[in-house]
This record gives sequence, C-alpha cells and structure tokens, in this order.
Amino acid sequence: MARLSERIADLRGSPVRAMLAASQQPDMISFAGGLPDADSFSDLEIPVPPRDLLQYGPSEGEADLRAHLAGELQALGIDTDADRVLILSGSQQGIDLAAKLAIDRGSGLAVEQPAYLAALQVFRFFGADFRLLDRTDPVAGWSGDPPVMAYVTPTFQNPTGGCWTAAERGALAGACAAHQVILFEDDPYRDLVSAPCDRRPVCADAGGSWIYQGSFSKTVAPGLRLGFLTASPDLFPYLLQLKQAADLHTNRLAQWSVLQILRHPGRARRMARVIGSYRHKRDRFAASLDRELGGLAQWEVPVGGLFFWVRLNAGVEVEALHRRALARGVLFTPGDHFLAAPDPSARGTMRLNFSAASPARAAEGLAILGQLIRQG
Amino acid sequence: MARLSERIADLRGSPVRAMLAASQQPDMISFAGGLPDADSFSDLEIPVPPRDLLQYGPSEGEADLRAHLAGELQALGIDTDADRVLILSGSQQGIDLAAKLAIDRGSGLAVEQPAYLAALQVFRFFGADFRLLDRTDPVAGWSGDPPVMAYVTPTFQNPTGGCWTAAERGALAGACAAHQVILFEDDPYRDLVSAPCDRRPVCADAGGSWIYQGSFSKTVAPGLRLGFLTASPDLFPYLLQLKQAADLHTNRLAQWSVLQILRHPGRARRMARVIGSYRHKRDRFAASLDRELGGLAQWEVPVGGLFFWVRLNAGVEVEALHRRALARGVLFTPGDHFLAAPDPSARGTMRLNFSAASPARAAEGLAILGQLIRQG
Repeated sequence: MARLSERIADLRGSPVRAMLAASQQPDMISFAGGLPDADSFSDLEIPVPPRDLLQYGPSEGEADLRAHLAGELQALGIDTDADRVLILSGSQQGIDLAAKLAIDRGSGLAVEQPAYLAALQVFRFFGADFRLLDRTDPVAGWSGDPPVMAYVTPTFQNPTGGCWTAAERGALAGACAAHQVILFEDDPYRDLVSAPCDRRPVCADAGGSWIYQGSFSKTVAPGLRLGFLTASPDLFPYLLQLKQAADLHTNRLAQWSVLQILRHPGRARRMARVIGSYRHKRDRFAASLDRELGGLAQWEVPVGGLFFWVRLNAGVEVEALHRRALARGVLFTPGDHFLAAPDPSARGTMRLNFSAASPARAAEGLAILGQLIRQG
Repeated sequence: MARLSERIADLRGSPVRAMLAASQQPDMISFAGGLPDADSFSDLEIPVPPRDLLQYGPSEGEADLRAHLAGELQALGIDTDADRVLILSGSQQGIDLAAKLAIDRGSGLAVEQPAYLAALQVFRFFGADFRLLDRTDPVAGWSGDPPVMAYVTPTFQNPTGGCWTAAERGALAGACAAHQVILFEDDPYRDLVSAPCDRRPVCADAGGSWIYQGSFSKTVAPGLRLGFLTASPDLFPYLLQLKQAADLHTNRLAQWSVLQILRHPGRARRMARVIGSYRHKRDRFAASLDRELGGLAQWEVPVGGLFFWVRLNAGVEVEALHRRALARGVLFTPGDHFLAAPDPSARGTMRLNFSAASPARAAEGLAILGQLIRQG
C-alpha cells in the first residue's frame, strides 16, 4: 500500500464533479451544478489567435488582458493596477492558491454558512478550522483568536443567491483590517444581476491584506477555464509564485480570445441581453416553483446569480428525495453539501440551479419534485 | 501583517519564472528556460473548435483525447486504459497533484541530483525531505525508512540530458514495488530523441503504485498548457479529485485542438522533421561549444531533450559568470538551482538550452561566455 499524505484523509468525493458528470447525461433535468445557459455563448465568435501565443508565456498572464482587467477593477473601486492582476486557469484555481498561501492544518478560516461547496472542499483539504461568520458582527467570535482568513461571496452568494448589505460589507472590511485577517472575496456572479442591490466589492474598502477574484465562466464561457485575481501588495508576489508552481501560466490562446470578446464593440449589448435572459429564466423558474412546490417549501427569489435556495417543509427527507428524483431523471444539490459545520437548521434545504435547463424542462423537473414530495 | 502558511517560508522566488521573463527580452541570447524552438510550431494549423466545448466539461478531460492517449501509452508498455488518463493543464500541474497526494511536511522523497528545478520547488514547498537517489542501487539508502515517493525523469533528464540504462530502470521499478514507494515518472522529453537509447518507461515495469506523466509543450506547443498523466488504479481516483479541486478541468478548446493535431495524417512526418531539427541544433551547438569553451569546461553531448549540462574548470565562479553574462545579454541557468541538497561536486555547473536560440545566435552567446571565462 502506498503511503499517502494526511490531507488525502480529508479528500471527499467531489459533489461538484459528480454532479457535472451526471448533469451531462442527455435526458437528465439538472438543477445541480452551476452551468451557465449555453445560449449565452451560442453566438460567441471564437477568433483564431496569433501564432506567437503558442510559445511559453508569463506566469502573470498576458499584459494587455491584465491592463484591461485592471481598468475594470479600478472602476469597481478596487485599489489595484495591471501589475497586480494575475490571470487564473479558472477562479477555482484562485481558491487553491489562497489556501496554499494561508492555510496550515488547524488555521482558522471564517466562512459563510452555507458556502460554496468546492471552496469548502479545498480549504478542508488543507486542514482549515472553519469558523462560521456572523455577517452583522464578524468580530463577535474572534476575540483573542481571530481567523487567518475570511472567505466570502457577498454578491449573489452560491448557494443562496443573496447579496450582502452595505453595512455588512463595511463591517467585514473593518473587522478584517482591525484583526489582520486576510479578506478573500470570491465574486464570480457579480454581473448576473436580476434586481438592484449593493454590489460594491468588500475589497474596495479593505484596509489590510486582501484577495479579490472573478471569473469569465459566467460572462464569457466556462470551457475556456479563465479567471483572474488581484490582491494587496503584500500578498500578490506570493500568489504569483504559487501560480507559477501550479501550472506555469494559463493557456495563452484563451487569454487572447477573452480579451477580444471583452473589447468587442457589441460587448455591452451582448451582456445586457445575457443578463435579461437570466432574469427571464429566474422569473419563469419562480413561477414554476410557486405552482409546483407552493405550500411544500419556502424560498426567496434571488437578486442575482444562478440559484434558488429552497427550504422544504419539516418532515421531508432531502437525501431520500434526492435519490428518488435521480431515479426520475431530475438532479439537484442537497443543501448539506454547502455546510462548513453540521447545522440542524439547514436540514431540508436544497440548491436549485435555474440557468442550465430550459424553462419548459425546468417546469417539468419541478413538477416531478412536487409529486415526489407529495407522495412523501 | 497577514499570517501566512508555514509553507510560504519555503517559497523561493522561482528561477524558472524569472528566466522566462528575462528570456523574453528581445535582445537576450537565452540558454536558460526550456523554450522549444518556435519554428517547431510555426506551421501548426489551429483549427476553430466546435462551440459546444465552451460549456463546462469533465474533470478527467475530453473522452476522445483520453482514448487516443491511452492507446499511445499502451504502445509504450504501460498498463492503462482511457479511464485512467487524466488531462492536465500542463505537466507542471501533475507535480502539484502528486505532491498533494503524497507529501506531508517531513515525508521522504527520493530525487535525482541534479533534478528538475520547478519540481524541487513544489516538493520543497509541501515540506518534502529530499533523499538523493542512487540509480545503480536505489535501495541502498532506504533501509528501514523508505521514502514515500521517488520522482524521476529517466529519459533525457532535465538538466543533464542523460538517459537511464535498462538496468537502472529495472532496479528502480523493483525497488519501488518492494518497498511500497510511489514511482512518479515525469517524461516530457521522450520524443525529442537525438541518439538511440533505452526509452522504455520505468512505469511499464512497475509492480506497485505509480504515476506516469507527459507533456505536449515540446511536441505540440507550450502556450496551450496541456499535459496528461496516468496512474495505478489505487492512486488515480485521488489524483482526479485533486485535479477537480485545482481547476475543475482543463481548457476544452486546447484539448480538442491537440487531438486534431495528434490525429493529423501528417503528424508522423511533422514529428520526424521536428526531431531532425532539434538534432541538427544540438550538433551545431556542440560544435560551437567545442570552439568557444573547449579546454574551459567539460560536457557530454546529450542523447535527447533540450539541454547541455556543462561543468566549468575548477576556479571559475558560476554566479559571477552568470551576472557578467547577463550584463552582456547572455542568460543561462547556474547548476545549483537543480540541487535538492548542497553538493560541492556540483559547483561550477551550468545548464545550457540549445533549442530556443538560433545556431548563429547561440554561437554568438557561447563566444561571449568563452571570453568572460578567459577574462576570469
């Protein structure tokens, strides 16, 4: 028997990967995963990149893409420049780099409850000691022993679709600066806005050490695997070295292609169309939920992002429902995958993605869920 | 001050990244880095990929690319199939995954001396305790306390360009199986063969747990960041989960493009041309070395790969030469970057890449090195 590292004991089968696999079965109605609507990139032109990009490139990423992103980040209020933008092979990679940067076995990590499951997986793997974040008073639980880092998704959180208030954002920024806690803000959904809300990045008001990251998986296309981060000057050089050690640099052709798409004169119009289409899908989904699960569960219509967070009435067993739904060709994600710590109050929750399935197929899937719940 | 992980203390500035950056200065004659000859992909057609690859894909990689690679790996004698091929975002990623799989702080890792510097960097970062490998008798230093893993590059080693004998390959395979040591074979240069030698993968004769990885950076193009690994059945599921946690999956367009290139009817002819061109460059480089550094240093003409390993005569200070050469626009890699442990006998060594510069530019750079050495 090979001897494996301690952290392998913490390695659980990834629910994300399993769901991506199951959701690719042709007849499955999938509310699992976070697949963007394929229509959102069906009209993308993929230009042929210049041939000199076939050679090795810089670990930081392509200079002109970094400069473009620095401008966008500055417009959000973030104090950065092109020299502090790092191109990632998808924003999942940023989670891996941040964990390597800050987490030893037993390091305290403040997280939301619920939180993004694939981030919990990485942090757990590096041995993080999860501390649940109190958004109204982050410092409450930190006295004498603040965590080394806080990992948050304040804008259209995955899985809840919620959006932090300005007061909550300010409280976290202040708490992190005062207690020397690294503020790690993951912001892949910010452009998918369905209703007005405060979207100012918490990192725009950070006073200490911080990492902010974004993704092109929702606004361009996930198959390109392209994301980016920026960070405070004390952290950036380490993150760059960790990136180099992880995969030298990100695919240069994808970087070039995304920059052409971002610079395209029709970009703003295209994004408005994509956002409108997601809002429409959200509203159709909400109507189907009302019709099929009304009285069986509670939820709020999300102000952005790709998910509904649904709490079933007491007495409905989610795991059993998950199994029976799968047998009927309907897939969703049980809420306990998103828990950093056991939480009885989260029993009976599920995350439903509204972007991947068509409204008609979604209605069909929700009808099946409603039937199964009623059958008990 | 943010509190960072223990492993950040082990994080050194990456010589690879620094050299890639310096080597991209336009007038530099670079013998550093491992840049393939840009001519080797100047004629590559980059086809436009199908649009459905813009969606998320499987963590394992694209099914048809995996099947193609399984066939190539089986032809090398490796016991695998398509289900045990994992597509990587460059083979550097495989080193990160293997370190996560096996290395805790203090875990024993057998390595060659010298060894690939960016692998040493990753393993050091995860806290490996390096044990120098004795190729003729690997078990000699293992009694009672075998390492958890052996990391080797038997075919056209980076930096030496050497190639292990069949006896050495057999000895390592047997030793790893007998002592439950994971055999990790890194094989990015195997196709760049300049003279006949035994290239049978050590993993083809592995009896225990093993990982074998390859790269398309040298045989297709590095800017695509594409590599692959296969592993014994006990290890593969963990490596797949680690890949998912690292970046979900590799860029799908790059996977598709490389498969088209591998399947192209002109592929074998193209590879023969590329290999012939590297052999020609190697021979021109050897002739320039004879002319410019003859009597000042010793070296062997490499049987494959991209590097000459040069030992300067006693009394020449490599670090001083490196500084003075850089000032004259010539870049090389001092040999001590490739050492897992201090080694007085490695003093005065340097690695010279022969593939990036044209033969004329290389001759010019070597003439400058010769002048500087003679000036003392």
